[in-house]
Amino acid sequence: MKQILIASTSTLHGSSFLEYLLDPLKIHFKNVETILFIPYARPGGISHDDYTEIVQRVFSKIGKTIKGLHEFEHPREAIKNAEGIFTGGGNTFVLVDHLYKTNAIDALKSSIESGTPYIGTSAGSNICGLTIGTSNDMPIAYPKSFKTLGVVPFNINPHYLDPDPNSTHMGETRETRIQEFHHFNSQPVIGLREGSYLEVMGSKITLKGPLSARIFEKDKTPYEIESETDVSGLN
Amino acid sequence: MKQILIASTSTLHGSSFLEYLLDPLKIHFKNVETILFIPYARPGGISHDDYTEIVQRVFSKIGKTIKGLHEFEHPREAIKNAEGIFTGGGNTFVLVDHLYKTNAIDALKSSIESGTPYIGTSAGSNICGLTIGTSNDMPIAYPKSFKTLGVVPFNINPHYLDPDPNSTHMGETRETRIQEFHHFNSQPVIGLREGSYLEVMGSKITLKGPLSARIFEKDKTPYEIESETDVSGLN
Repeated sequence: MKQILIASTSTLHGSSFLEYLLDPLKIHFKNVETILFIPYARPGGISHDDYTEIVQRVFSKIGKTIKGLHEFEHPREAIKNAEGIFTGGGNTFVLVDHLYKTNAIDALKSSIESGTPYIGTSAGSNICGLTIGTSNDMPIAYPKSFKTLGVVPFNINPHYLDPDPNSTHMGETRETRIQEFHHFNSQPVIGLREGSYLEVMGSKITLKGPLSARIFEKDKTPYEIESETDVSGLN
Repeated sequence: MKQILIASTSTLHGSSFLEYLLDPLKIHFKNVETILFIPYARPGGISHDDYTEIVQRVFSKIGKTIKGLHEFEHPREAIKNAEGIFTGGGNTFVLVDHLYKTNAIDALKSSIESGTPYIGTSAGSNICGLTIGTSNDMPIAYPKSFKTLGVVPFNINPHYLDPDPNSTHMGETRETRIQEFHHFNSQPVIGLREGSYLEVMGSKITLKGPLSARIFEKDKTPYEIESETDVSGLN
């Protein structure tokens, strides 16, 4: 049975890294001692070692040991044998490029589908969707494909931002960008605001956290769903 | 001799499409009657025909005829024969994907390098750089490569936005994104604010418009340059 948390962000404004997720993570990883951490997204270009150390410091608070995927000679084996997996945020293009280069992407998909508890934040959430076509990130690396895990049947837009009515900036709003996406792609997109996450338990997908989320379906007006809404039917 | 204008945006807040560029365009295209328009970036998913019509309406004000590249059976020939070329904004990934699919990219590079007057706005400016690795757009299409025209020896970041000191949003600022770019890429990046453009005349590249621009070089602190600065040495 799939057990996945797909979080918009790792960090809320004024709060520390993963702080708001520690209670759900305790439950999510209750039968897990060692979590395999995928540091490939490298926020700010940080090294795999440094990123893994930051994650270890936080997970120590709930009694978990962290192993970085980069420490293993055979990443596919490490993923297959993992008790639980966390993919952190950073740059989605860098993450996906490295997942393809290490041949890890199908192993990760199999592992999640066979029930290994997984959490992704930001870039680590983007890859749970069908493609990274709704990433907000700068394309600083060129991955072999934009296709990702597809462990949910839609795309994610993390850090979803409502249009600012006072803005004089002429760059596209997030809503405009996602609507452009639907001129060229058909899958639904969930815009997850910071503080929201999706909980996937088997075939059930539920919006969690204090906020509503915005759903974009091709040829439909975007709409809001409240927290605790079951979005399993969205595909 | 290269004759290129590379504009951050087509449109300023409170002003109409291309309005602030009409005077420089009169001079830029003074010997040109018919401008070839490349509508491939399709802002908001607009059709090639509709986009071309909007552009024709504006260029009529300065007595120019517009032909859309999509109207030609042989795009490479059309580019080779063009008196002047304009690539409009929209989505950079869609633009580059279509330029590769129509086999137009090297023809466009040759034409610009042999002196055909060119203007790009936004996505049409991004492609003047070495790659689209500093685009702000959502990756809604997967182009064959991120490599672009390289008619200037650096990358462009159009619609450059300064960090908002009051923001509580945890997504990366533009500056952070460009600094991440430099962990994986070495070319300089010019952050062009809306209202700024670069003028390339032969080997001379000058910042134009009322604003300063922000320069990012690998392993250096970003810095500002004033309007009329010669940036020919940046590479």
